[in-house]
Amino acid sequence: MISVKIIAVGTLKENYLRDAAAEYSKRLSGYCKLSVVQLKESKLSDNPSEREIANALDEEAKAISAELSPRSYKIAMCVEGRQISSEALAEKIEAVSLEKSEICFVIGSSYGLSDKIKSACDMRLSVSQLTFPHQLLRVMLLESVYRAFNIIAGTKYHK
Amino acid sequence: MISVKIIAVGTLKENYLRDAAAEYSKRLSGYCKLSVVQLKESKLSDNPSEREIANALDEEAKAISAELSPRSYKIAMCVEGRQISSEALAEKIEAVSLEKSEICFVIGSSYGLSDKIKSACDMRLSVSQLTFPHQLLRVMLLESVYRAFNIIAGTKYHK
Repeated sequence: MISVKIIAVGTLKENYLRDAAAEYSKRLSGYCKLSVVQLKESKLSDNPSEREIANALDEEAKAISAELSPRSYKIAMCVEGRQISSEALAEKIEAVSLEKSEICFVIGSSYGLSDKIKSACDMRLSVSQLTFPHQLLRVMLLESVYRAFNIIAGTKYHK
Repeated sequence: MISVKIIAVGTLKENYLRDAAAEYSKRLSGYCKLSVVQLKESKLSDNPSEREIANALDEEAKAISAELSPRSYKIAMCVEGRQISSEALAEKIEAVSLEKSEICFVIGSSYGLSDKIKSACDMRLSVSQLTFPHQLLRVMLLESVYRAFNIIAGTKYHK
């Protein structure tokens, strides 16, 4: 059973997001060993300068890097990444599981991810051209991974 | 204040989705007159034939058509539609509000929308190449519309 690790910066603040994430975690337990690592979001002033944002992303990058493993196929979630279909995500997960013991998705803070993290990953994945809050994105990612495993298993979830 | 109407086939079954939709409805009330019309999803057998699915979509299309207004700028949500950024969605809403009193988004059932509905709409909008459950899509759409209004208003919500 492959391990799926989600590294996410920031906590889920809304109850409905926590409930959604818990539901998908439960559903995913039949398909993979899921772990979700929540890292601290750097504090920023109300109107942060470019430099302040870069420093925050740097600080977050250090904490993320400590969680990245060479055993893992690493995917950075970023708006400029490649978009793929649910079927293609399923194929990707299947292909990765032949070579690696873990697939790891990295979700940054509301200012995204440092270039260092993007470069350290094997792939950049975009979900949409639209911007979504990183907390909702976590639920969207859990759903997409759950769907991918259902496609691999050939269940009726994905019609 | 522009009206935003969301026509959706099917009900939100999970509590967390209902809570999320309620939260965004509350937030949107400051920006628009929001109405959400939930239509009945046609019942299908466990393993529906192409014909059965087409009939279901036809039935749903009739109910949707009755809710479409010529006063409205109508957007069909479908995976093959055009993807746009949050900024472009904001521009679209702003442009529409100069000409129409309502903007209407149509979300189909798990088998999508009938071609009749797609043709009756002014635009086809896709959120992602990934497939999302139509119920989660409703929350994603509410978030995107809320973000668009924040972009128009120049708040700090969209950084």
